[in-house]
Amino acid sequence: MEVTDAVLAANHRYYEAFEARDLDAMSAAWERTERATCTHPGWATLRGWGPIAASYFALFQGPGQLQFVLTRERVATTGDVAWVSLDENLLGDGGGVTIATVNIFVADPAVGEWRMVCHHGSAVAAAMEELGG
Amino acid sequence: MEVTDAVLAANHRYYEAFEARDLDAMSAAWERTERATCTHPGWATLRGWGPIAASYFALFQGPGQLQFVLTRERVATTGDVAWVSLDENLLGDGGGVTIATVNIFVADPAVGEWRMVCHHGSAVAAAMEELGG
Repeated sequence: MEVTDAVLAANHRYYEAFEARDLDAMSAAWERTERATCTHPGWATLRGWGPIAASYFALFQGPGQLQFVLTRERVATTGDVAWVSLDENLLGDGGGVTIATVNIFVADPAVGEWRMVCHHGSAVAAAMEELGG
Repeated sequence: MEVTDAVLAANHRYYEAFEARDLDAMSAAWERTERATCTHPGWATLRGWGPIAASYFALFQGPGQLQFVLTRERVATTGDVAWVSLDENLLGDGGGVTIATVNIFVADPAVGEWRMVCHHGSAVAAAMEELGG
């Protein structure tokens, strides 16, 4: 359970950074490398920490604070890689939407922490919600 | 390069199985476990090999053969886990669409092969295509 808890803590740090619009905390949550990838819902995949950081900077300037309610979080681990499957339930000014998400983390032995190396979210069409059972 | 090539081969096996509508080949491409997850574009995340297999069975019955042109394939590896970031350019009866995708594979030492354990695809909105540069 220790590894699972550490991965979930890393996952939550990401969402706390997002909600707080804290770019420093967001930087700390990520593996800031060229292999890092980020696919926001409906976006093309961003590659490398530079474009990813720029996207969060832009998102943090936007109107309407986002609040995430995380459901169906499930952690899988093999060696130093973990991936979390979850639903982000987004409560925004425009109403609610469910984002099906996978986050990949890699253990950083130097600091004993897990860092996000891939984030991929996609909006779930209303007709497909029932599949999530 | 050997590992990267093996992961790319596993990635291509998945798309060949999809194009051929071959459920046996699709089964061979996947880690058929409870932790396997699959998020088709706009769908809720399916968990476990049973629901995932059922989804491919349903998709393979549908009208309109799908053809995938894969671009921007990039492999990252840590230990026995690899993830491939790529664009699926789908050529179907209704015209073209780009699906931003991440596929996670785990090495199966028993057979010396990489098996898919997570597939997540999401349609890229036209306005976002330029980001994919």
